[in-house]
Amino acid sequence: MGKPNLCIAHSGGVTAILNTTAAATIRRARESQQFGTIYAAEFGLNGLVSGRLFDTTPLTDTQLTQLSHTPSSAFGSCRFKLPDYTADPKPYQQIMQTCADFNIQYLVYQGGNDSQDTTLKLSAAQSHFSHPLAVIGLPKTIDNDLEGTDFCPGYPSAAKYIATSIQEAALDTWAMSKNSTQVFILEVMGRHTGWLALAAGIARSHPEQAPHSILIPERSFCKKTWLDYVKRCVSQYGFCVVVASEGITDQQGNALVAQSRTDAFGHKQLGGVGAYLADLVSTQAGLKAHWALPDYLQRSAGHLRSAADVACAQQLGEAAIDALLNGQHSVMLALSRTQSTPVSWQTTTIDLNQCANLEKTCPLDYLEAETNLLSDAAKSYLTPLLTGEASPEFMHGTPAYFNRSDLRLALHPNTTEQIV
Amino acid sequence: MGKPNLCIAHSGGVTAILNTTAAATIRRARESQQFGTIYAAEFGLNGLVSGRLFDTTPLTDTQLTQLSHTPSSAFGSCRFKLPDYTADPKPYQQIMQTCADFNIQYLVYQGGNDSQDTTLKLSAAQSHFSHPLAVIGLPKTIDNDLEGTDFCPGYPSAAKYIATSIQEAALDTWAMSKNSTQVFILEVMGRHTGWLALAAGIARSHPEQAPHSILIPERSFCKKTWLDYVKRCVSQYGFCVVVASEGITDQQGNALVAQSRTDAFGHKQLGGVGAYLADLVSTQAGLKAHWALPDYLQRSAGHLRSAADVACAQQLGEAAIDALLNGQHSVMLALSRTQSTPVSWQTTTIDLNQCANLEKTCPLDYLEAETNLLSDAAKSYLTPLLTGEASPEFMHGTPAYFNRSDLRLALHPNTTEQIV
Repeated sequence: MGKPNLCIAHSGGVTAILNTTAAATIRRARESQQFGTIYAAEFGLNGLVSGRLFDTTPLTDTQLTQLSHTPSSAFGSCRFKLPDYTADPKPYQQIMQTCADFNIQYLVYQGGNDSQDTTLKLSAAQSHFSHPLAVIGLPKTIDNDLEGTDFCPGYPSAAKYIATSIQEAALDTWAMSKNSTQVFILEVMGRHTGWLALAAGIARSHPEQAPHSILIPERSFCKKTWLDYVKRCVSQYGFCVVVASEGITDQQGNALVAQSRTDAFGHKQLGGVGAYLADLVSTQAGLKAHWALPDYLQRSAGHLRSAADVACAQQLGEAAIDALLNGQHSVMLALSRTQSTPVSWQTTTIDLNQCANLEKTCPLDYLEAETNLLSDAAKSYLTPLLTGEASPEFMHGTPAYFNRSDLRLALHPNTTEQIV
Repeated sequence: MGKPNLCIAHSGGVTAILNTTAAATIRRARESQQFGTIYAAEFGLNGLVSGRLFDTTPLTDTQLTQLSHTPSSAFGSCRFKLPDYTADPKPYQQIMQTCADFNIQYLVYQGGNDSQDTTLKLSAAQSHFSHPLAVIGLPKTIDNDLEGTDFCPGYPSAAKYIATSIQEAALDTWAMSKNSTQVFILEVMGRHTGWLALAAGIARSHPEQAPHSILIPERSFCKKTWLDYVKRCVSQYGFCVVVASEGITDQQGNALVAQSRTDAFGHKQLGGVGAYLADLVSTQAGLKAHWALPDYLQRSAGHLRSAADVACAQQLGEAAIDALLNGQHSVMLALSRTQSTPVSWQTTTIDLNQCANLEKTCPLDYLEAETNLLSDAAKSYLTPLLTGEASPEFMHGTPAYFNRSDLRLALHPNTTEQIV
């Protein structure tokens, strides 16, 4: 029996730097010469359940570099909630069968707080199986709501996109404000936390600067107070620019715009806050409003990544291999900020129970309630995350991203036939 | 009496390179030493009517460079339809009074097809006034629908943003397609023409590549045919990515989603096509859909400008001064593509009657109806427009754009008091 094999799997909503971490993990694992084949699961847990894995062996160094610059997940992600083992052991059995078949003894699982629940459950279920599987969790989410880490990789790049876009939209809105639009609303992701909306205010230091209003789920929304504020901004500055988290709630804690659908984790599928607020401004304040919904564009903007995000994503990808080779498993790696100038981040480990299913909210003192100005503490936190630009190569006008057709599914060890 | 003065004014929806042209015009005018003061009208025609003008004299070379990199219009634009002179001469009288007061004898007016109507009317009204005013029009619109020019400055940068964003969103959608979203819809600007939507297909060469569906106003929308196509894409490729112009119409020529409001030019304010299509996919095809509405983000994305767009915007800004000094006026400057490799553009002049109020639509043979693949002719047209990146400087994580507070309103010649 040769060296043990390693598998990478992605979970949850994708980000601009998941592939960056994956490429770093693959490179470090290759360099260590301690692993046989390095696999990546197709669509995360789905590929582990079904035995559909990509064999990363054929990827050249050039292709890994291109992968590293490419947003989203080249292998596919999943929204797959593992049931409790006692309630339904079947998916666990399928995953362990795949790992046994492919001699996968190490799994790097990257995801958000729901996904660390999967890491925790897979780790805890180990005692039921004879095949050894060391699982390590890596953080990732543009929501930045994972406990135990200074920030979540993916957040700084999405935050940079939001902070840049709102500046640009604000320049546009002011220019059109005399005869056309006075109010612009940007609806950003964030079901329960306002981290992305908060970042929109990073370049603002005076009340007359945009974005004038930052609406976060951590602070309840009062229609009258907000409309009065918007009208005052338009009266004083000629325009008003608003950033709203998709999940803001009224004073009774109800989402402003709730929809009936729910995802695999039982979360309500939200959306429509931008349209709702624009309609409010138009019908109740008599002001013309435009609104934008960047949706996936905000989390996959590979053309505007934060250099700090990219560096930390690589650091974590490498640290996962180092940790596994040091015998660590059943933990999540995290980032701890050092106090030196310039800021840097150390990799630490945290107990999965301290992050799985937990949500870290925005401190309320990060955003001054009256003026919507960010506090110095908020700026000190955010500025190092957003600083620095990591640009992809462009070809004929658009980014030259990794081509998924360069990937090959692995042959199943018990067959010589290609998996289709 | 000193040298004659010059004024710049912007009209219509802003773009990522209006300031680039303005900075080039100011620089060329300064270099020529043929002008006194170079003004810029606050909010376009509004500033000329009310006498509110910025005096660009204090702007340093560094500030002009920063202005050149900044999207939108630092002076403000307008949606201001001049009435016919015979019906209402008052705004003409006000504009000419401002020009006389400030000794403005040259006006550079940059805008789209509606705005060239203003250039035409102002030129034609000259005979009613004793103050001489030479007016020259410059093209601008992200819609790319102006007749008589190879392209409209602003379009290549917006097109680059759309083409990049759709690639990124497609990577995201595929990665989520197993357990979550199968269909992604991007709603882009374009009331009557599909130029922006078309650009989304520039990097696509096989039917399995995204964006699979490109919906343009030039081709009527059939719900059943489209839903069948979307379902076929999802069945064959696992996902389907769609780009839809805001102004697509059904087979009776009605906008899919019409709203009741109209702007100053009588255009219907459209929007909602993305939400409409996503709902169709969800309710009638049973597929989960996400949609995005970039709105102003697509036309003011200074962080992702096309180098060709920037170069031509500068060229036109300089050519406007050269033309005025050569005695040309009452024309629009345009761009004519040379056939050499690499492609370059010559500045030409066209009669205002050949562009005012006219719309240039997308040739239908640019977009193959069955596969939604772009023709070779479309790619030959688009590729030189999108090629090359012009990035702004960043500071602390976001672009360091020109600060509007560096501008000063001009003192009215008949007073020593500051205009407020």
